[in-house]
Amino acid sequence: MTLKLHNFFRSSTSTRLRAALNLKGLNYDYIPYVLRTGETRTPEYLAKNPQGLVPTLEREDGTYLTQSLAIMEWLEETHPEPALLPADADGRARVRALSYMIALEIHPLNNLRVLFRLRDQFGADEEAQKEWFTHWVTITFDALEAELSASKDTGTYCHGDTPTMADCCLYAQVWNNKRFGVPLESWPVISRIYTELDKLPAFTKAAPPNQPDAA
Amino acid sequence: MTLKLHNFFRSSTSTRLRAALNLKGLNYDYIPYVLRTGETRTPEYLAKNPQGLVPTLEREDGTYLTQSLAIMEWLEETHPEPALLPADADGRARVRALSYMIALEIHPLNNLRVLFRLRDQFGADEEAQKEWFTHWVTITFDALEAELSASKDTGTYCHGDTPTMADCCLYAQVWNNKRFGVPLESWPVISRIYTELDKLPAFTKAAPPNQPDAA
Repeated sequence: MTLKLHNFFRSSTSTRLRAALNLKGLNYDYIPYVLRTGETRTPEYLAKNPQGLVPTLEREDGTYLTQSLAIMEWLEETHPEPALLPADADGRARVRALSYMIALEIHPLNNLRVLFRLRDQFGADEEAQKEWFTHWVTITFDALEAELSASKDTGTYCHGDTPTMADCCLYAQVWNNKRFGVPLESWPVISRIYTELDKLPAFTKAAPPNQPDAA
Repeated sequence: MTLKLHNFFRSSTSTRLRAALNLKGLNYDYIPYVLRTGETRTPEYLAKNPQGLVPTLEREDGTYLTQSLAIMEWLEETHPEPALLPADADGRARVRALSYMIALEIHPLNNLRVLFRLRDQFGADEEAQKEWFTHWVTITFDALEAELSASKDTGTYCHGDTPTMADCCLYAQVWNNKRFGVPLESWPVISRIYTELDKLPAFTKAAPPNQPDAA
């Protein structure tokens, strides 16, 4: 199987999908794009992904899958082992909710095109962008920390002792936080889980600095 | 089964979940909250939902589910009929990707707390908020329209001739657009699908003006 991953080393959605592919033991060709210079806004790329976003997963039959969370669910359905979601409906609901806290309440507000928009519409400089970025990380990480601290389902990782979709999202978000130097100390459980994930080759192999297009 | 839906009539995430519950034929008690006055920021509500967001689904055993998309997946797993996702993995990936285009790339940027933040951090007035809101709707609806127009999988609704999770998200977003009067004319396929959905009782019953707390 030759999968092609159209992505960008620093993109958080790319990082979370790389971790999921690695956990599933799936190899892929790495196709890098530079977001700042508009390489995902070309007609050729838009034919693969009408939103002009990364990542896009190209399958061996030449068809494309978009939206990292949808691709992760597709991987789970087509390559069930090892599982990225628990077997029980309650556990699956918890792991998805944890994933969506990060993927819906932090990332969409803090990605590059949003920071560009803040600059263009409101004249937000680097400092104002950092304040915005840190605000959304903080309010959701506070809630995530509360949930992870209180739940008996939290284990070595977000849910039990095997990594799940939620861990892919958490690991990628912590990497993304480094862009603006958001310190992890306020969130000891998140910090502990990140440290545990960073011991696993599937995650370190997915980390931004370890990609071929890393600066 | 007595489900309790903690929600707000105008909330887009609440609307999409109400549509899903209605499609599944599940009854629920409607518990309204006023977001602007902080009714979801009380200690009592934060114990149900640490993010202080709506919706929260309270089950008959007194436990809570959060994040509308995670709840919809849970509904699908625990009450499979009628299905909100296709049976095949490719179709499921497409419906999830369409859902996430709206749920990740539009809604998180345009909800009330983000508009408040734009006002507080950048002094954005109603006009600037409208420009911001319309921008994110437009770029994603343009891509969604392109995808829906091009795909042979589009039917009466987003995917084939039965409503799916993607239609719940689309219907709620079109309602949300009315807040700032974003016209639908530029997107004829989205507009056609919305009109079809608006003929179904499961959707009209979920629409904001038809809720007990509607102003």
